[in-house]
Amino acid sequence: MSENGLASRRGKVLTTDTMNPSVKKVEYAVRGPIVQRAVEIENELKKGAKKPFSEVIKANIGDAHAMGQQPVTFFRQVLALCSYPELLNSPLFPEDVKSRAGRILQSCGGGSIGETLQFCVRQDVAQYIKQRDGGIPCNPDNIYLSTGASDAIVTILKLLVCGEGRTCTGAMIPIPQYPLYSAALAELGAVQINYYLDEENCWSLNIGELRRALVDARKHCNPRVLCIINPGNPTGQVQSRKCIEDVIRFAAEENLFLMADEVYQDNVYADGCHFHSFKKVLFEMGPQYSNTVELASFHSTSKCYMGECGFRGGYMEVVNMDSDVKAQLTKLVSVRLCPPVPGQALMDLVVNPPKPGEPSHATFMKERTATLRSLAERAKLTEQILNTVPGIHCNPVQGAMYSFPQITIPERAVQEAKEKGQAPDMFYCMKLLDETGICVVPGSGFGQKEGTYHFRMTILPPTDKLKILLQKVKEFHMGFTEQFS
Amino acid sequence: MSENGLASRRGKVLTTDTMNPSVKKVEYAVRGPIVQRAVEIENELKKGAKKPFSEVIKANIGDAHAMGQQPVTFFRQVLALCSYPELLNSPLFPEDVKSRAGRILQSCGGGSIGETLQFCVRQDVAQYIKQRDGGIPCNPDNIYLSTGASDAIVTILKLLVCGEGRTCTGAMIPIPQYPLYSAALAELGAVQINYYLDEENCWSLNIGELRRALVDARKHCNPRVLCIINPGNPTGQVQSRKCIEDVIRFAAEENLFLMADEVYQDNVYADGCHFHSFKKVLFEMGPQYSNTVELASFHSTSKCYMGECGFRGGYMEVVNMDSDVKAQLTKLVSVRLCPPVPGQALMDLVVNPPKPGEPSHATFMKERTATLRSLAERAKLTEQILNTVPGIHCNPVQGAMYSFPQITIPERAVQEAKEKGQAPDMFYCMKLLDETGICVVPGSGFGQKEGTYHFRMTILPPTDKLKILLQKVKEFHMGFTEQFS
Repeated sequence: MSENGLASRRGKVLTTDTMNPSVKKVEYAVRGPIVQRAVEIENELKKGAKKPFSEVIKANIGDAHAMGQQPVTFFRQVLALCSYPELLNSPLFPEDVKSRAGRILQSCGGGSIGETLQFCVRQDVAQYIKQRDGGIPCNPDNIYLSTGASDAIVTILKLLVCGEGRTCTGAMIPIPQYPLYSAALAELGAVQINYYLDEENCWSLNIGELRRALVDARKHCNPRVLCIINPGNPTGQVQSRKCIEDVIRFAAEENLFLMADEVYQDNVYADGCHFHSFKKVLFEMGPQYSNTVELASFHSTSKCYMGECGFRGGYMEVVNMDSDVKAQLTKLVSVRLCPPVPGQALMDLVVNPPKPGEPSHATFMKERTATLRSLAERAKLTEQILNTVPGIHCNPVQGAMYSFPQITIPERAVQEAKEKGQAPDMFYCMKLLDETGICVVPGSGFGQKEGTYHFRMTILPPTDKLKILLQKVKEFHMGFTEQFS
Repeated sequence: MSENGLASRRGKVLTTDTMNPSVKKVEYAVRGPIVQRAVEIENELKKGAKKPFSEVIKANIGDAHAMGQQPVTFFRQVLALCSYPELLNSPLFPEDVKSRAGRILQSCGGGSIGETLQFCVRQDVAQYIKQRDGGIPCNPDNIYLSTGASDAIVTILKLLVCGEGRTCTGAMIPIPQYPLYSAALAELGAVQINYYLDEENCWSLNIGELRRALVDARKHCNPRVLCIINPGNPTGQVQSRKCIEDVIRFAAEENLFLMADEVYQDNVYADGCHFHSFKKVLFEMGPQYSNTVELASFHSTSKCYMGECGFRGGYMEVVNMDSDVKAQLTKLVSVRLCPPVPGQALMDLVVNPPKPGEPSHATFMKERTATLRSLAERAKLTEQILNTVPGIHCNPVQGAMYSFPQITIPERAVQEAKEKGQAPDMFYCMKLLDETGICVVPGSGFGQKEGTYHFRMTILPPTDKLKILLQKVKEFHMGFTEQFS
């Protein structure tokens, strides 16, 4: 190398000044500074540090297995056989487990789950959707498998992004939202259009607010897509059928592409609440809607009674998508090769679980029911205990896996947070973590009305632990309020 | 919905005219029109159509299991136990399999592979790299797990993209290339800078050509990154140590970020060829390089003797990356949650296989050796038979999983292809598929010197089948030449 060459190497090629500016704008609070602090505290505890608690409780992420939920036996038995087909000869497994594993292996060209199986899964997904939606047809050609739902959501947003300045694609997202949406929009350089959920009415979606947000946005961008999360994350509401109809009508009138994030479709707990898929409601509204409104809806293996976050299984169904765009979508997903095959296999089992009369059916139903019943109990418990705390107000957790209570933060604490350069609810959550070991995510990471403060806490800890945790939150909040009043 | 509303819905929201223009520019030949035609033919065969062949042989994708390669027993046994931990009590499995599965499950917070395990894998990867590279240290903090190598490659390119017009990031890629690179650059809106590999010298990389490409590119963009694929895809060359040193010196002089795609690191067949990692060579060149040159290198579970494409396991190591950029990288990958956990577990087993003395060691070594030996045999066979065909010239397949022979296409065939609006090698490959059932990818999908034609064919079919396949290619080529002469 020449002297000259060495001299020309003035510094790093890649610095925060010279990196992709869109990536810098990405925020993702669910695994942000609060989680880094949680990991630090865990390490301090391991090294024998004395704290007023003995473990960090991660109520920040919706990972059910991490909180002790057991996997569904049938799913895992089939996956074990797919991994190691020698077990097909073992007497340890029921016949239906073996026949399922055999079917999945056969769908893989070479008989190994080392490769794609796609087609059989897409057919089974279509069958599941048809049955879920009371017989409304579903075409396997409209099903795209994905690496969890996140992957599919980002892919659809990516297709929709174009233009600059006033013609730049705008995407309407709920506030509070799951921050995948804001992160993806920042990365793609699209405009985020906030519509606020109505906290006073149990986080319901209000069409007037949708219209306000849209009219405002049209002044500076081109709104093209409306994102819905139902049941809601982080807000836990379940949309009524009437509300879904209104949203579909609104999308039709305003020429918006609909994205329905329905990953919590089995997680509905409150009396009188039911899950209605956007697809079903769309089709029941008649051909003037079902033949025109473009819809992508998303599901995954990570939530519901399964909780299999690690397998990254997912799918989306697209309805009324232009056929040339579908060809572009197919091309785009091909570049990334296939979604993980164990996740595909798991997705297949989720959409096609054991049937009555099959050997695994009773156990499957028992496990599924127990998990959903226990989640419903924990949802109720969370709401009840939090609402006993002066200065905390928690809406009913109608569905999904989170509570998102509003917290009153005394003015003096708000001031102290500002002096530290922290959002007030980040200040609150950091203190909660340091004093109790409980890790929750500040509401500012999801978005909230100016001047209000919240945190997101999962309902996933086991009931006994959850009671203790909620009691600790209560004591912390009362102490915090006293300290800063 | 108002009449007005209905009238306003003039057409689809998302059409090829209104979609993301960068996505439209993406091309991915490996699963392009040739594969769609192959699927059509398979369906025709299923329906009883009469063809001069009875099956389609997919020599287009590097999926070893699809071509009949058996999975490594140890890997699959451990994965089965991780899926269904009840099997830990079964006498069917050797002790080292059980202890490995136990270790992986323990690394998962809740004891289920339904969630992230990351930390233990990153430590094991660092240990593997250190051992592979003769003791050069590797810090687990520099390891990022990924969903196959593709995911990590796109992520690094994404970090590097910024600017517009003359300041827009340019990325140097080999031609021929694996089309993930061109696809990712198109999608990200970066400038693709082609440097041509030297076909006359066994597809070697020539520094003069690198310099030519760089100087040209500086006239219209900002070249910041140099991508290397070693062993080469689709070209099968293995870089010499001297060449790697030259490339590193070039990157240092010209201030380029290095990306080394090393997913075929165990696939080296030719006498006298060895795999040298960029990391190792960089560190052996001394601190003036090892302390400055920014490098990201990539590996996965999909190739080598493993061939586990479906698990989407992978990692990258970053060296000399700015610490603030690393924080941005960590944030970016967190948004997509974790790579598939079964893939992480598999990656862990790949970097930490059975050791001598452990019960599974002998079988593991036998399987690994047999696979690599057979691939070496098939590499040789492919080169030899193709070179017996007048009008086909095939460089030695020194490594990886593909041959990329140059084919002479008669002028009359070139004309006929042009009339059909097809690239001449696409015309050739379509005819090959229609007449023989053999599916290969036209060279134009990877890039090639103007006026030359190639195809990429995997060496993955079992030896007996490969011989028949090569014989058929020979006959086809001779017939094709005669027909169009």
